[in-house]
Amino acid sequence: MIKVAVDAMGGDYAPSEMVAGAVEAVKAQPGIQVLLVGREDVVTSELSKHTYEKERIQVVNATEVIATEEPPVNAIRKKKDSSIVVGMNLVKKQEADAFVSAGSSGAILVGGQVIVGRIKGVERPPLAPLIPTETGVSLLIDCGANVDARPSHLVQFARMGSIYMEHVMKVEKPRVAIVNIGAEEEKGNALVKETFPLLKECRDINFIGSIEAREIPHGAADVIVCEAFVGNVILKLYEGVGATLISKVKSGMMTSLRSKIGALLVKPALKSTLKSFDASQYGGAPLLGLNGLVVKTHGSSKANEVKNSIIQCVTFKEQGINEKIKESLKAVNKED
Amino acid sequence: MIKVAVDAMGGDYAPSEMVAGAVEAVKAQPGIQVLLVGREDVVTSELSKHTYEKERIQVVNATEVIATEEPPVNAIRKKKDSSIVVGMNLVKKQEADAFVSAGSSGAILVGGQVIVGRIKGVERPPLAPLIPTETGVSLLIDCGANVDARPSHLVQFARMGSIYMEHVMKVEKPRVAIVNIGAEEEKGNALVKETFPLLKECRDINFIGSIEAREIPHGAADVIVCEAFVGNVILKLYEGVGATLISKVKSGMMTSLRSKIGALLVKPALKSTLKSFDASQYGGAPLLGLNGLVVKTHGSSKANEVKNSIIQCVTFKEQGINEKIKESLKAVNKED
Repeated sequence: MIKVAVDAMGGDYAPSEMVAGAVEAVKAQPGIQVLLVGREDVVTSELSKHTYEKERIQVVNATEVIATEEPPVNAIRKKKDSSIVVGMNLVKKQEADAFVSAGSSGAILVGGQVIVGRIKGVERPPLAPLIPTETGVSLLIDCGANVDARPSHLVQFARMGSIYMEHVMKVEKPRVAIVNIGAEEEKGNALVKETFPLLKECRDINFIGSIEAREIPHGAADVIVCEAFVGNVILKLYEGVGATLISKVKSGMMTSLRSKIGALLVKPALKSTLKSFDASQYGGAPLLGLNGLVVKTHGSSKANEVKNSIIQCVTFKEQGINEKIKESLKAVNKED
Repeated sequence: MIKVAVDAMGGDYAPSEMVAGAVEAVKAQPGIQVLLVGREDVVTSELSKHTYEKERIQVVNATEVIATEEPPVNAIRKKKDSSIVVGMNLVKKQEADAFVSAGSSGAILVGGQVIVGRIKGVERPPLAPLIPTETGVSLLIDCGANVDARPSHLVQFARMGSIYMEHVMKVEKPRVAIVNIGAEEEKGNALVKETFPLLKECRDINFIGSIEAREIPHGAADVIVCEAFVGNVILKLYEGVGATLISKVKSGMMTSLRSKIGALLVKPALKSTLKSFDASQYGGAPLLGLNGLVVKTHGSSKANEVKNSIIQCVTFKEQGINEKIKESLKAVNKED
């Protein structure tokens, strides 16, 4: 039985969609138990709207909520009874295998490091969302808050990302690339130039060299390594350009009677096509390298994404990703 | 009469589209003379396919061509008779006001600095393309090859970009923002944190704070300041996500008979909508801060973009952008 703690209070549609996602997850997948963390009265009342196997969902009381705009370090330190702090403590005390939250990214990143703690040897835990591509999904690592990264961090990101894609997403020999402004080895800023030869030396990853941002949506690599500032820009621009273009397409279709009729006819086909390019289909972003699993889902997550994020935790645990990360770090230290 | 030198040999469709663009430009706009730089026999033969006022287009012989994959520094140093070196020398010797090329970006950036030279006081000349947004266009500055920038460089980019948008693109009090991973002043990497207060102090620009990448396509700022690595990622991802989504929309429309009929009906409306999101509509990217003007157009430029890039040079010259940049630097030095 795998136990997943879920932040019932975080996210734009909390608590209703968080609770609904938890119910859907236990219905969809045997072997999961969910601990819903949040204000007991609110969560219990929300749960009463659903039918489910009672013994598989438990409510853990947490009286406070961390808002997205609160400075994260302070919030984690002061709001000891917030759903994020209580949920993370469940993971720390091994009363839960994983914690899923759609709440404040900053608080989740800080809490992961401070409460759950890093695996020994991991320098910085990266946040690694899956992004949609023409051919499937790629892991973008790091999109967290680790600014001004060093080459050794990026090498660890490459290793952890590679293990995740191979064992959770079942990609054989994941192609690992570093984000760069040209394809040649001598291109790039100081960080990329120093990291490139280190990645080339890693015998445990399938490093294919530089990737230009233009190639990312084509699915040219499975693991896309970059420091967090660049990763954030990529992730958010992906969303921004996608949303803008889709709204342009929609309004373009409404410009004449002829195109309005056409729009009615293409709508069902377009909907399923664009859905495949919607990041929310692919569960949440794991914060890798922690003693336990913390998953950040979109702030705008609805039940379906919450469900997917919970189920993702099962694969992570079953595949022993953290044990594999530990082994890989040990093997590297031996080599040195 | 404004004289624009055009690289007839650079770009995917050279020389035919470069020559055609030059012919279109002199037809569209009085007061321009074009110097087509390239192999005389080739260019003359291409020109013979067009009718135009002979005295307004002149051929300047250059026997060599710099290929896109050549290391730029070496190419500029060794290929003294290449179209890029010859064209830049025309600007240096003030025999031309501007040089437009769709050739090797690297060679254009290096040649601009080494041959044309920087305006006194300009630390690094940025490459500043216009990118399409929901509401118009924004200037993305810097997308060049200036890696590992310092805060003072970014402040100069903000100033030069602001002058360009105000006087060439006619945007009143252009809103200047710095690319960041959050909206708050305390967020960001070391470079952004150091640059932010410097930009706040600039009384000559309308600094509106941080911009997250998600907001760029919405047109949330007119001048988007970032260092070149990040700028390159933004520019190329813009193209990549756009191209991927459009191809997804197109293939989605072809999935059923119903949607195929719909596609025929929406096509004309969609075409004009998507055209407004096509970067090639907006001419080339100026390399700012040089003693003269150098404009880099897309490698895939066709006649229309070449024409727009040439006409852009007229506004640049007429508005005295370089004089305004010089004045702004002088004013700042006096303040210090």
